[in-house]
Amino acid sequence: MRMYDIIEKKRDGLELTKEEITYFINGYTSGDIPDYQVSSLLMAIYFQDMTEEERALLTTSMVNSGDTIDLSAISGIKVDKHSTGGVGDTTTLILAPLVASLGVPVAKMSGRGLGHTGGTIDKLEAVPGFHVEITSNEFMDLVNKNKVAVIGQTGNLTPADKKLYSLRDVTATVSSIPLIASSIMSKKIAAGADAIVLDVKTGAGAFMKDLDDAKKLANAMVSIGNRVGRNTMAVISDMSQPLGNAIGNALEVREAIDTLQGKGPEDLTELCLTLGSQMVVLANKADSIDEARNKLKENLTNGKAFEQFKIFLESQGGDSSVADKPESLPQAKYKVELKAKQSGTIAEIVADDVGTAAMMLGAGRATKESVIDLAVGIVLHKKIGDHVNEGETLLTIHANQDSIEEVKDKLYASITISDEQVTAPPLIYDTVTK
Amino acid sequence: MRMYDIIEKKRDGLELTKEEITYFINGYTSGDIPDYQVSSLLMAIYFQDMTEEERALLTTSMVNSGDTIDLSAISGIKVDKHSTGGVGDTTTLILAPLVASLGVPVAKMSGRGLGHTGGTIDKLEAVPGFHVEITSNEFMDLVNKNKVAVIGQTGNLTPADKKLYSLRDVTATVSSIPLIASSIMSKKIAAGADAIVLDVKTGAGAFMKDLDDAKKLANAMVSIGNRVGRNTMAVISDMSQPLGNAIGNALEVREAIDTLQGKGPEDLTELCLTLGSQMVVLANKADSIDEARNKLKENLTNGKAFEQFKIFLESQGGDSSVADKPESLPQAKYKVELKAKQSGTIAEIVADDVGTAAMMLGAGRATKESVIDLAVGIVLHKKIGDHVNEGETLLTIHANQDSIEEVKDKLYASITISDEQVTAPPLIYDTVTK
Repeated sequence: MRMYDIIEKKRDGLELTKEEITYFINGYTSGDIPDYQVSSLLMAIYFQDMTEEERALLTTSMVNSGDTIDLSAISGIKVDKHSTGGVGDTTTLILAPLVASLGVPVAKMSGRGLGHTGGTIDKLEAVPGFHVEITSNEFMDLVNKNKVAVIGQTGNLTPADKKLYSLRDVTATVSSIPLIASSIMSKKIAAGADAIVLDVKTGAGAFMKDLDDAKKLANAMVSIGNRVGRNTMAVISDMSQPLGNAIGNALEVREAIDTLQGKGPEDLTELCLTLGSQMVVLANKADSIDEARNKLKENLTNGKAFEQFKIFLESQGGDSSVADKPESLPQAKYKVELKAKQSGTIAEIVADDVGTAAMMLGAGRATKESVIDLAVGIVLHKKIGDHVNEGETLLTIHANQDSIEEVKDKLYASITISDEQVTAPPLIYDTVTK
Repeated sequence: MRMYDIIEKKRDGLELTKEEITYFINGYTSGDIPDYQVSSLLMAIYFQDMTEEERALLTTSMVNSGDTIDLSAISGIKVDKHSTGGVGDTTTLILAPLVASLGVPVAKMSGRGLGHTGGTIDKLEAVPGFHVEITSNEFMDLVNKNKVAVIGQTGNLTPADKKLYSLRDVTATVSSIPLIASSIMSKKIAAGADAIVLDVKTGAGAFMKDLDDAKKLANAMVSIGNRVGRNTMAVISDMSQPLGNAIGNALEVREAIDTLQGKGPEDLTELCLTLGSQMVVLANKADSIDEARNKLKENLTNGKAFEQFKIFLESQGGDSSVADKPESLPQAKYKVELKAKQSGTIAEIVADDVGTAAMMLGAGRATKESVIDLAVGIVLHKKIGDHVNEGETLLTIHANQDSIEEVKDKLYASITISDEQVTAPPLIYDTVTK
């Protein structure tokens, strides 16, 4: 078999076989196939696409390129949730204890990552004592005992995906549906979940700006998951404005605490109930979405979800008293209110730009070496569709730096106030099942 | 400027600017831009094509990537001829002295190359004493004096094209019209010609199997040539069967000698007259194609073209007496006649396969290190449309090896004899001018 023939075949729009896809992925992982042949194949895939079968085969080959996590020591159906990423997305912090409170085992492998704020682990480390340095056995024991635990990334998962992603990043081949879908799904599958709920974001703050593209990606991932034997579904949700009100690490933990007590922002609560009820059904802990939803709502108000969160924090060394006293979480030195310069209706809050403002305050990592300031960030007081009077507070900036003029300018520029009536965008656009 | 943005722009079907194309070619030649970015750009070009302006800019950038030949010391309009390559193509050996006999300066830079037979220099070296190891000054003096001379390739011409071609060859991006056209034209332009006549071959033995593709390539090259200020035209000619009768080095020299005396095969003579008359008109040595053609025909019969050939051989150390005694050229040990197994009309002589058979005899180079046997090859006695009786000779194999069973099998397989009436294919399909 020759890589040349594989490139030519895909260039001419033909379907690659299992043997060809395996040859390509194994040869690239081992270094036998050079970058320059792979980048031309990636560009050919960009133009010619892949069939559902090819996408599943590519995903499986990438999974097999490295270690895979065996979660079979955990009883029950392990359901993982994945979001394609957005601004102020606190759902994982809430969903993990929330669905665990209904007996769904949540074995969460998480990262730190780059972006506007830290990853789930960074956020949880705002709780004094909390740590993820536990062994795999401790991790599985904790999930069996408490139904929820979080561990940092272990093992050499999907090395083929890491190499491919680095190459795509410099050859303008990132934005290809089969390549995005197989990259995400290979990581989820290697991490050992039995079932997967995907939250595909769309809008100005999402990777998929366009709803049609988001639908294509959701369909691609749901197809791959089910073809490789993992029960998979996707929700397409809005990321034209930030989700919830808080953008920042400790600020999002605080928002999660509120939400777990039934006092969270409406959109964030609604998205958690939507994703959570899918997870509960996939885990066989309810017979219908409605039943699951009602049970979850109950646990948000009866204290069970909140209690589960505290057990979770303590089981990994965290001081759970912060859940009762959120003001003890890291606090920024300055709290500056951004006032509306005119009256009207909020027409736009560009999520990406608000995220960039949070990053300018120090909430996120630009490079792997960056140190995150857990205390800083932004809390929105108004969302799209809300009325605001001139001089009223639009949002609060939590900062540790003296000069925040640039941040304020960025935020003012990201918010549009209109004289016209504006309706809030829908939160959920679509649900994709096999 | 970033290579990433250039790839993305072409991927999205936009037109690259002069600055972008220059940046890409200069960066790749210097090694600053890696192969893996260039191969993804090449694949994007494969799918998105290039405008006529982009193609001309790419060609100019490749010309500027290395040395260029200055032929200004030669008086008159220097017209070069280029063939896209085929089997048994003896035209250069004939055209050089033929058009020189009308005062057209022919300053031919030629190579050895890989293929079914050797290049023009290999063929000429079948003449005892002939050599191309002359200085540039001697070369130009010879052209001024005798109107014709041949030199081996000198200088570092179009290094960008060499690098790009090597990369295209392993990334399935060879067969792209803008890339083929700019590659050929950059070499011709760097070699210093004022005007260019292109012989674009089409059919089973050509790179462009399909007539439509051959027309596209011809149009692309003619457009590039004229945009960069070189008067350029193209003839599209048949290569479904070998051109002329001889395939092999000394055998082709002998065929050239015959043709220069007006006794050559009809198709080869006709193509030389067609290409030659275009060259004569471009060199301002005739006012019309008809006038040029008549003058050329005259010189084939009055001995002037033949005389010019002898002067040319002698001026570069060759023994011109071989022209009068072609039997003194290298001769193969065995001459084996291939007999027809049935009666009928020749319907097909697959040029590529006949070429491969010549190569199996040792007429061509498979690698740069291969040694060519100048004496061996094939002489056809029948062409498409000819009637043949069972037992009549189809062709003669000139071999130095004892066992030629494989060669015979290959040749039998390449020739189809039909019971039906078959018409010979046209020799000239089209003429493309700006």
